[in-house]
Amino acid sequence: MFQTFEATTSPDQGPPRLARLREAMVGAGVDAFLVPRADAHQGEYVPPRDERLAWLTGFTGSAGLAAVLAGEAGVFVDGRYRLQIKAQTAPDFTPVDWPETKPAEWLGARLPKGRTLGFDPWLHTDEEISAFERALPDRELKPVSNLVDAIWDDQPDPPRGAVLNWPEELAGAGADRKIAEIAEAVGRAGAKAVVLTLPDSVSWLLNLRGSDIGRVPVVLAFAVLHADGRVDLFRRAEDLSGVDLPDSVTPRGPEEFPEALTGLEGPVLVDPETSPRAVKMALAAAGTGMIRGRDPCVSRKARKTPEELAATRAAHLRDGAAMVEFLCWLDGSAPGGLTEISVARALEGFRRGTNALKDISFDTIAGGGPNAAIVHYRVTTETDRGLREGELLLVDSGGQYEDGTTDVTRTVAIGTPRRDHTRAFTLVLKGMIALSRARWPDGLAGRDLDALARAPLWSAGLDYDHGTGHGVGVYLSVHEGPQRIARSSDIPLEPGMILSNEPGYYREGDFGIRVENLVAVRKAETLPGGDAHRDFLCFETLTWVPIDRRLIDVGLLSADERAWVDAYHARARELLEDRVSPAARDWLVMAAAPLRDA
Amino acid sequence: MFQTFEATTSPDQGPPRLARLREAMVGAGVDAFLVPRADAHQGEYVPPRDERLAWLTGFTGSAGLAAVLAGEAGVFVDGRYRLQIKAQTAPDFTPVDWPETKPAEWLGARLPKGRTLGFDPWLHTDEEISAFERALPDRELKPVSNLVDAIWDDQPDPPRGAVLNWPEELAGAGADRKIAEIAEAVGRAGAKAVVLTLPDSVSWLLNLRGSDIGRVPVVLAFAVLHADGRVDLFRRAEDLSGVDLPDSVTPRGPEEFPEALTGLEGPVLVDPETSPRAVKMALAAAGTGMIRGRDPCVSRKARKTPEELAATRAAHLRDGAAMVEFLCWLDGSAPGGLTEISVARALEGFRRGTNALKDISFDTIAGGGPNAAIVHYRVTTETDRGLREGELLLVDSGGQYEDGTTDVTRTVAIGTPRRDHTRAFTLVLKGMIALSRARWPDGLAGRDLDALARAPLWSAGLDYDHGTGHGVGVYLSVHEGPQRIARSSDIPLEPGMILSNEPGYYREGDFGIRVENLVAVRKAETLPGGDAHRDFLCFETLTWVPIDRRLIDVGLLSADERAWVDAYHARARELLEDRVSPAARDWLVMAAAPLRDA
Repeated sequence: MFQTFEATTSPDQGPPRLARLREAMVGAGVDAFLVPRADAHQGEYVPPRDERLAWLTGFTGSAGLAAVLAGEAGVFVDGRYRLQIKAQTAPDFTPVDWPETKPAEWLGARLPKGRTLGFDPWLHTDEEISAFERALPDRELKPVSNLVDAIWDDQPDPPRGAVLNWPEELAGAGADRKIAEIAEAVGRAGAKAVVLTLPDSVSWLLNLRGSDIGRVPVVLAFAVLHADGRVDLFRRAEDLSGVDLPDSVTPRGPEEFPEALTGLEGPVLVDPETSPRAVKMALAAAGTGMIRGRDPCVSRKARKTPEELAATRAAHLRDGAAMVEFLCWLDGSAPGGLTEISVARALEGFRRGTNALKDISFDTIAGGGPNAAIVHYRVTTETDRGLREGELLLVDSGGQYEDGTTDVTRTVAIGTPRRDHTRAFTLVLKGMIALSRARWPDGLAGRDLDALARAPLWSAGLDYDHGTGHGVGVYLSVHEGPQRIARSSDIPLEPGMILSNEPGYYREGDFGIRVENLVAVRKAETLPGGDAHRDFLCFETLTWVPIDRRLIDVGLLSADERAWVDAYHARARELLEDRVSPAARDWLVMAAAPLRDA
Repeated sequence: MFQTFEATTSPDQGPPRLARLREAMVGAGVDAFLVPRADAHQGEYVPPRDERLAWLTGFTGSAGLAAVLAGEAGVFVDGRYRLQIKAQTAPDFTPVDWPETKPAEWLGARLPKGRTLGFDPWLHTDEEISAFERALPDRELKPVSNLVDAIWDDQPDPPRGAVLNWPEELAGAGADRKIAEIAEAVGRAGAKAVVLTLPDSVSWLLNLRGSDIGRVPVVLAFAVLHADGRVDLFRRAEDLSGVDLPDSVTPRGPEEFPEALTGLEGPVLVDPETSPRAVKMALAAAGTGMIRGRDPCVSRKARKTPEELAATRAAHLRDGAAMVEFLCWLDGSAPGGLTEISVARALEGFRRGTNALKDISFDTIAGGGPNAAIVHYRVTTETDRGLREGELLLVDSGGQYEDGTTDVTRTVAIGTPRRDHTRAFTLVLKGMIALSRARWPDGLAGRDLDALARAPLWSAGLDYDHGTGHGVGVYLSVHEGPQRIARSSDIPLEPGMILSNEPGYYREGDFGIRVENLVAVRKAETLPGGDAHRDFLCFETLTWVPIDRRLIDVGLLSADERAWVDAYHARARELLEDRVSPAARDWLVMAAAPLRDA
């Protein structure tokens, strides 16, 4: 099993560690110290060595920050973790609502002028520290070596997972070509080099994949790409021994990275939103000029090549077949004695059964009844709930395969659903269909489409409090930028971008619904009678998994929507029926049948 | 007739005037001079005295700017005026595409460093001149008295239209209360006073209406509102003799305004986007502190009072009855020997027949066949086109009544429409219905709803190149901010705001379609089963005028859309049938009948 369901921390662990940290703060001459959940690469997942926040406080959520003072220790967590933090931490820690309260404001009210705030410059982005500096005038912001590391006796080593080449047939472009493209972009920006600190960028650029951390097959490494096409890759040579790299790439020890920065000729392109403050400090110390700008790999990586799209289509069929096996099994077994954990275990088993699963792409969200209304619910042995007749089960999951990353949510009726279940489900589905069928003029951003997915819910007085879609990688992170479908996203959607399409509805304490497919942006064909001078884009659906027809109120669908569901199911059956077991095939035929009038 | 159809300028007038202007430039010691279409109040319409651009160049469009150099005179006009400017100006003037080419860039390439650009500081906003200053380093930007005025011998006098009180029963708030509210906002902003240069703001604040310019019943006047609640109104006392003003309002001569500015205690709130550079110059010369911020009347004015909404509802019924008389007449007469001008004349006649029409709210757009594809088409004797069987007629018009401002577009089939006419019309109508029926969570901006009006067109490969809706006043400007329904608008929609809902479709050289109702934002009732913790907003339809059922392809409508059309027509009939002539009543009964299956 990749996924675990046990608590890994205890509230008791915090207070003695907090006391030791405060001693270390005195030793380092700082009055306050920041302990973020981040590592130097600012990823969603961090290796065990970087779980400093969990080690110190007991809080294991995926985002958070502790601000430790001599007399108080605030732990900043967002809405999804308000309950969890209370359960996981001792009263010595004060939960603070984030982002409603900004850490800098909170510190501003507690840290007198003239005092010192210490931070590890590798764990905070340049922009993050700049915001602290602006908000805390007359305090000293002092970069120090990490004070948690200093007191964490059995801190794990940095990960040294195997590094492998990702086949060029899947990538559609060799590392050489990508390096040349990015080098050109660096030159166009007027820079001599770019510092790459995002492991997705480095892994994409060099067609490498790794196993340093769970869920995301990136190689944790920094790199410097020079405008002349040379690349310094800061990863131990022995980790790279089995790997083909272009001659232009020079492996160097990770410990050489800070010094290498000081040796760079400027100006150097640095992404202030993602690179550690330490990078800027090293360049500034050497007097090297900097150009602030987005990591040029990010937008290039977001536009998948035809080969990447073909690969991910194959991964989605494999994953779809596993999902069909799972849904068939679930229909035959539930509720039985099943619980959320047994569901997550079974699903991982079906994905493993493909013999191609490298990892799950995130911890499966399997929520029954009211648990499904907790948007980022992760079942543990404490919260595990049995499936019950008349409840909904929400399962959001995905797999990492060498040829692609999947992310799919299906909500399933256990027994006979209630009328408010089917109504809300159908409204969610209508939004998901509206986006699936959308065509829009080239140039629009995710924010311009977000309303299409919500309008059916809005018209019933309902809504959901999360974005409609996030970017997705190909055998990379299941959450990648820059594109999103959300009111906050101004990034134009471009052909080749992969996004999730996942409207939902959540009734607190009662039930939760989400329907999610992955889609890829592509140019739309010109329609007869359409404006000849306009370019339109549309989505290609990547995910093929039956949608629970028992939850669809056919009377609420328009003829077009109904036709979409039937065509989706017909295509899913066509694509998957030869890929599943005989039992699952029978189930698929039934599940993919056309909708019937009520 | 309010509307005229004759050309008021000739291309011949330009060259001798341009020569005299260049002499005046030499005399004033400037190498270039800006002649905007704007007046000091930055309104959409300007009085004859301020038609300097038309006087100089012959170009009569509603937006434009001439940049005159010794050897070249660029006239900047946007897309809707590309053809018109060529017809109206002599070759001595160079049309320049705006905003593709910025005037400052164009000048930057022509005005050598060290040279002087003259401008009248009353006719340009502070922000506009700041942009020139940023874009033209090493040139002197020199405020001078207006050089066109210096050579325009028979320049009309400033307008002195009658000023009248606007009844408090219609406004729902007395001038005293509005002054107190705005004074409080000024105090909250940390200012001692605000300079009001927008005539809509002044007219709204003091419940005054005027007749200084056509189409917009504003009083052209500056005002200074002090945080202590005193108001200086810069308008000749004799113009205000018949008007009740609160004791806190002191009329002062317009010529006193500049000096009054220098006497203000700071800081003074100034809106850099709307107030003339001269205001900032006067304050700066006196060493008075300034706070830059939006005119506080603008957003307050945008949220209509219940009384204003009731008034505008009444105006819309009166206007709807006139529109019914017009459409009845048109159906009985067209094509006959009718032309676009005769249509516009007849429509104005029916509005005058209400005996309540103060003015039309803008020059009627009456476009037949290909003329309707020109989005801002204004018919003149030269372009006037006869109505023809099988063509569409687009009529966009509105009235100014004491109780409200209307703006309505109907597209009408002359004879039997083509299939592509009915298809495009129905797609436009679907978008208009989607917005009419929309409910959305409180807090969203126009940009978040814009897609709803376009999605039906998008799905057929069609779109339109204008915003979906603009703000509308109550017996004020038919175009008012800050709210819009457009991808460019981040302003949250708030209860009481009036907007147009006007999707369209235009096939160049062939036909044009637009359907427009005015709507008002209001709180939506909670729906059974809706989320109790969310506030939703929706639109109330204000415009009641039948939509041409001959142009609706019923097969393209959903059941909900069809029900909306039928309910709209039933309500229009109910509201209007007792307000129209017997013949028009018969027509209304027919036009408002339920849709029939094809």
